[in-house]
Amino acid sequence: MNEQQSNKPYVIGLDLGGTNSVFGIVDAQGDIKATTAIKTGGFATAADYVNACIEALQVIIGQVGGIGTIKAMGIGAPNANYYNGTIEFAPNLSWAHDGVVPLADMFSQALGIPVAMTNDANAAAVGEMVYGVARGMKNFIVITLGTGVGSGIVVNGQLLYGHDGFAGELGHVTMIRGEEGRLCGCGRTGCLETYCSATGVARTARELLAKTDRPSLLRNMKAEDITSLDVAIAAGKGDNLANEIYQFTGKMLGEACADFAAFSSPEAFIFFGGMVKAGELIMKPIREAYDAHVMPIFRGKAQFLVSGLDGASAAVLGASAIGWEIQ
Amino acid sequence: MNEQQSNKPYVIGLDLGGTNSVFGIVDAQGDIKATTAIKTGGFATAADYVNACIEALQVIIGQVGGIGTIKAMGIGAPNANYYNGTIEFAPNLSWAHDGVVPLADMFSQALGIPVAMTNDANAAAVGEMVYGVARGMKNFIVITLGTGVGSGIVVNGQLLYGHDGFAGELGHVTMIRGEEGRLCGCGRTGCLETYCSATGVARTARELLAKTDRPSLLRNMKAEDITSLDVAIAAGKGDNLANEIYQFTGKMLGEACADFAAFSSPEAFIFFGGMVKAGELIMKPIREAYDAHVMPIFRGKAQFLVSGLDGASAAVLGASAIGWEIQ
Repeated sequence: MNEQQSNKPYVIGLDLGGTNSVFGIVDAQGDIKATTAIKTGGFATAADYVNACIEALQVIIGQVGGIGTIKAMGIGAPNANYYNGTIEFAPNLSWAHDGVVPLADMFSQALGIPVAMTNDANAAAVGEMVYGVARGMKNFIVITLGTGVGSGIVVNGQLLYGHDGFAGELGHVTMIRGEEGRLCGCGRTGCLETYCSATGVARTARELLAKTDRPSLLRNMKAEDITSLDVAIAAGKGDNLANEIYQFTGKMLGEACADFAAFSSPEAFIFFGGMVKAGELIMKPIREAYDAHVMPIFRGKAQFLVSGLDGASAAVLGASAIGWEIQ
Repeated sequence: MNEQQSNKPYVIGLDLGGTNSVFGIVDAQGDIKATTAIKTGGFATAADYVNACIEALQVIIGQVGGIGTIKAMGIGAPNANYYNGTIEFAPNLSWAHDGVVPLADMFSQALGIPVAMTNDANAAAVGEMVYGVARGMKNFIVITLGTGVGSGIVVNGQLLYGHDGFAGELGHVTMIRGEEGRLCGCGRTGCLETYCSATGVARTARELLAKTDRPSLLRNMKAEDITSLDVAIAAGKGDNLANEIYQFTGKMLGEACADFAAFSSPEAFIFFGGMVKAGELIMKPIREAYDAHVMPIFRGKAQFLVSGLDGASAAVLGASAIGWEIQ
């Protein structure tokens, strides 16, 4: 580990979300030594945002012995370009929605330490490699199941960034071609994300409730209020329709993973994010569909794991892990 | 280039096919200085095969100044495992169909030089990187369109081998799910290869001729004799049905490439193999379908190229390129 060469025991992680910006100071074992947060919005410019961050950071940096103890900073952020250290046209960030913000450089100059940035799914993948269930692995894929479906792909022990820094958008491979595919937020149809995100699960529920008159506990609530958690709870109570929704979701994910194996032949698929709380309800149909659909040469080789990072702080840990990776 | 460090100006390439084993001695510019070949079959054991190869090789090694001028050997072979240097259960090789043959080690011991081996599509990718149109590129995908559909994926300037050495089987991503998908040689259905290989094109032709009574030059021949070349020739003569077959094939490939972009965001897709001779007939619908289906963030970024390696010797050049890559 690099911190032993530099004798600096900590890195800063910033989980930059649309609503909150959460900071942690983290050691090489993944223990969070100090944490703070500010609201992400409400700033006219990126410079104002960075100033507010630095002010909040000074307090926790002081708590761990000053900036001299800190090797680097990692940021997980939407629309982040790793190569340039920029946030580009991020629709949910008031100070970055219509331009390119060199956020890594801005933090680096303010703090005097190296700063690297990538998107949250890539940060999760590095987090699993540094602190989580992927320790020692060189080829694996993290799939984040939240509002959307994201991914971080590690090959030969390195994150796959591709030519332009935007590789690893596995939520947007096409699962159902042509007009039958669901409309996706990316403007296309049939993307994995439209079926297997939390919102995709809720959409499947509403479709299935409207299409049939089968009984279900989910009929006790307004269709537009149903969440993936409601579906998981109903399934846990033995609701057949709710179970079928997770079967469908897991089957779609397992078939997608079979295609991903043909690409990079990972030793593990690691699932991360809110929907993973559904446990075997989602993991079992994933494994079954994978085994049924993967090429014989890959069958039985890959592990299917759930994230080893603590849920509440997983995103901060992932972001901080990017800091350890800076050469 | 490594040959400058070692002062050895040549590598040996072996294109190990089911019928012929073709050898070339190649310099760093990709010029083939000497070549020879033997039949691949007819040997009882792998040792007999290697002995026959060495006998043939001695002649051309002598022609270039002896083994002291040769840095390494690269082999492109079916069912080759790069990590172990083995050929594993290759159905078309009499001396390797029911076991694991450590072919790289056997050649290395016989010749006293390092030997590396991979499959032919991976060899083609390294060939493009060392001598062809991918010189200077670090992220690209070679797609081989022949009897099957193969692929070699380069990320961060390295071939993607995956956990087990078998990554990059893009001919076997699923394009049409469920019962409608065509049965594939791999035992599954709907694989890209069943539509976009040379045999896939002929299959599309037979299906379309049987399903409709539309006029076509292809009706002048027996349906079972139609090849992808016949379809290309008919299309060149303005045959509508034949054109439609290539439209369909290219569309399928372009949509597949759109998914591949979401995976590794390459700067180029490079097409290789016999079917590439169809030129714009296949390349135009590929580009059009890609532009129509790729995520907006990737649109307009990737180049679509045809192989820069001379057709007749491309496979030997690809194999030899593996030799330069040995550290």
